Amino acid sequence: MKSFNEISKYINTEIDNINWTKEPVGLYEPISYTMKQGGKRIRPALLLMAYNLFQDDIENAIKPAIGIEVFHNFTLLHDDIMDKASIRRGKPTVHIKWDENTAILSGDVMQIIAYEFIAQTEAPYLKEVLLLFSKTAAEICEGQQYDMEFETREDVSSEEYLEMIRLKTAVLLGCSLQIGAILGGASQEDAKLLYDFGVNIGIAFQLKDDLLDVYGDKDIFGKQIGGDIFSNKKTFLLIHAKNKAKDDISEKLEFWLKKENPDRESKINEVTKIYNQLEVKNICEEAMNSYYKKAIANLDFVDVSSTKKQELRKLAEKLLHRND
Amino acid sequence: MKSFNEISKYINTEIDNINWTKEPVGLYEPISYTMKQGGKRIRPALLLMAYNLFQDDIENAIKPAIGIEVFHNFTLLHDDIMDKASIRRGKPTVHIKWDENTAILSGDVMQIIAYEFIAQTEAPYLKEVLLLFSKTAAEICEGQQYDMEFETREDVSSEEYLEMIRLKTAVLLGCSLQIGAILGGASQEDAKLLYDFGVNIGIAFQLKDDLLDVYGDKDIFGKQIGGDIFSNKKTFLLIHAKNKAKDDISEKLEFWLKKENPDRESKINEVTKIYNQLEVKNICEEAMNSYYKKAIANLDFVDVSSTKKQELRKLAEKLLHRND
Repeated sequence: MKSFNEISKYINTEIDNINWTKEPVGLYEPISYTMKQGGKRIRPALLLMAYNLFQDDIENAIKPAIGIEVFHNFTLLHDDIMDKASIRRGKPTVHIKWDENTAILSGDVMQIIAYEFIAQTEAPYLKEVLLLFSKTAAEICEGQQYDMEFETREDVSSEEYLEMIRLKTAVLLGCSLQIGAILGGASQEDAKLLYDFGVNIGIAFQLKDDLLDVYGDKDIFGKQIGGDIFSNKKTFLLIHAKNKAKDDISEKLEFWLKKENPDRESKINEVTKIYNQLEVKNICEEAMNSYYKKAIANLDFVDVSSTKKQELRKLAEKLLHRND
Repeated sequence: MKSFNEISKYINTEIDNINWTKEPVGLYEPISYTMKQGGKRIRPALLLMAYNLFQDDIENAIKPAIGIEVFHNFTLLHDDIMDKASIRRGKPTVHIKWDENTAILSGDVMQIIAYEFIAQTEAPYLKEVLLLFSKTAAEICEGQQYDMEFETREDVSSEEYLEMIRLKTAVLLGCSLQIGAILGGASQEDAKLLYDFGVNIGIAFQLKDDLLDVYGDKDIFGKQIGGDIFSNKKTFLLIHAKNKAKDDISEKLEFWLKKENPDRESKINEVTKIYNQLEVKNICEEAMNSYYKKAIANLDFVDVSSTKKQELRKLAEKLLHRND
């Protein structure tokens, strides 16, 4: 069994050794720029770790693992255009550094490159992996669509929010694990359990993200604290705050949500105070822990020794207790 | 052997029977809108016609054929954003009818749906088809990139232009034919000859498009005549006109290319006059005919009876003598 760190190191070496740039440079340079920014590369690690539960030669599964990471980075690139985000991983986003057309077209090519890597899957598994990957890829776009639609809706329920983050974030973690399991020759049951493990971890992961945005340590968290609050993003925290708030607290919350050109710091401080009064942090943490427990239960049922599953369990815990 | 018309009818029925719309409607409705606009659907027809050279049961190849058509429509959708085109097939483009984010994301999903159809290829051919399709898909993006780069370049050569249209337009025709041949069990040589046939027809097809923009009958041609001239698009005609023009004709041409806010009709009339004086129509027709001849030579070498190849030959001729 390889540790998460060993697997991560291997993935980084493989990805960083790829020469992404070719002619026309104007099309491929932004892809190289995006892929060289690193990130946690959790998804390919999950794929290889799931594979490693059943097989030792993780090199055999590296191509689809890279495909998943390329696809993930493609979604970030296109999402950044749609969300008008100017910074990603501390650097200007592609549509800012180049322009929007470049970002659209380079993203399109990244999606194709992702499929080229996925196509390197061993023949007997290729169709199954392709269809799972494609289904997941479409779901991620559906999640992004819901996320955008929620921006202009005032009645988003917490169930709808959870479904949105399941699609936008969690299914790709599940898909990565399931592909690793399929390629490793796992039973259908184990492959499905690993998928569910990934989805539940993914939802917990996103709830943690919502928490970090408000309660993270700004020196450790990569982004500025309070970005979600400032932009009225309908996170799990805000949805529950709106549901729980009554009378003057409700009025105060609405005041900050509707205030035009608010002072950034005041808005973040005041809304955080409201969150604290309403104890929505607890609700979010409870939901997060509940998904985490479901995930661990899924993992427990996978028909492989506990020792082998230790690394996935540790990674799940690490993702939940992370500060960035 | 099925005729082109029979095959087209079959494709139209199959595509028009698909229900493209599902939740979230905001994401899938633009896909339905795009796919329902029809178009010539030449590419899936080429795929099935190539398959039909070797096999009778064209139903066996319909899924990848649909995949190719979905992919083609995806490229039009994203190109229309990049080119700021407001009309496609007589109707508002997706980014106009909805908005740019919708057009980006719906296009992304179309690319995934294209791959889902391609994944329905029979297992023994899947990897080969996938890699050919992906290589072609990336080339189409490269062609679009060159096309955009040419807009701000003054020194585009006719060789560069031909390479751009090969990538942007011709390779997908070749790819469609080659996939049909592969699925039909053709030899590698025949599959390659059909690819080359498609590429050469594709280049001839695009040169015909350049000609129709200037010399088409506006009542038959789907678009307004002279659009390329008005927008200074570096077509084969303009590139050759710039090369051939001397002294006062050169000055006149430059005047119209540089004139800000020109009267549309005057500019189109005057530049067309220059084209006529310089006889660039002939140069373009000669190039077109030369690619057409190469294509027919490729087809002649395919190891199948002339009778069977009759329909492809007729289609090639029809594409070249079309008025729209």
